[in-house]
Amino acid sequence: MHAGFARLPEPPYYAVIFSSLRNGDDEAGYAAAADRMLELAATQPGYLGAESTRGSDGFGITVSYWASEAAIAAWKHHAEHAATRNHGRKFWYEHFELRVAKVERAYGKPTKG
Amino acid sequence: MHAGFARLPEPPYYAVIFSSLRNGDDEAGYAAAADRMLELAATQPGYLGAESTRGSDGFGITVSYWASEAAIAAWKHHAEHAATRNHGRKFWYEHFELRVAKVERAYGKPTKG
Repeated sequence: MHAGFARLPEPPYYAVIFSSLRNGDDEAGYAAAADRMLELAATQPGYLGAESTRGSDGFGITVSYWASEAAIAAWKHHAEHAATRNHGRKFWYEHFELRVAKVERAYGKPTKG
Repeated sequence: MHAGFARLPEPPYYAVIFSSLRNGDDEAGYAAAADRMLELAATQPGYLGAESTRGSDGFGITVSYWASEAAIAAWKHHAEHAATRNHGRKFWYEHFELRVAKVERAYGKPTKG
């Protein structure tokens, strides 16, 4: 399976849907921080997976998946994450929207072969 | 605000999170159908908005937002949508995952200026 897909358990679980428009500044710093945040998130209790993509226009969507609301809250308050998030709000994004949702059902098309 | 962002009411509402990997075939046919589906979705009862992006590796995420489960079900069974969806499963996607979620809270960073 393509590395972009998250391997998730059966629902229910939670999704944090983060859509953002990059301002184009500090590409190296942004890219390093984005990689670091995905790496750090993956070590948190209740983390299930994430999917992320960004088009050439700078508009991107990242969906991270979590076992519980408590896991989302703990990640929100993680010190390094909070510091990076505050930096990002000031310096990297023209605009963003964040939505927290409970996934109730899911299905997919299996990869061939 | 960048056209990529959906303008949504206050939660609760529903999200359909569709992540997919294009197989690279039939780019013109796929692009025309994707535009048509977003245009058609926007005319359906209960449609609230959508956000969509795809990276250069062919991995994409589209999130459409709906007022109710009933609105999602009606769109799922819309004849033209169903026909296009079946075509897409056979000819356009290497793999996809679809998750239906209830958005419980949301916030954003206002666009400057």
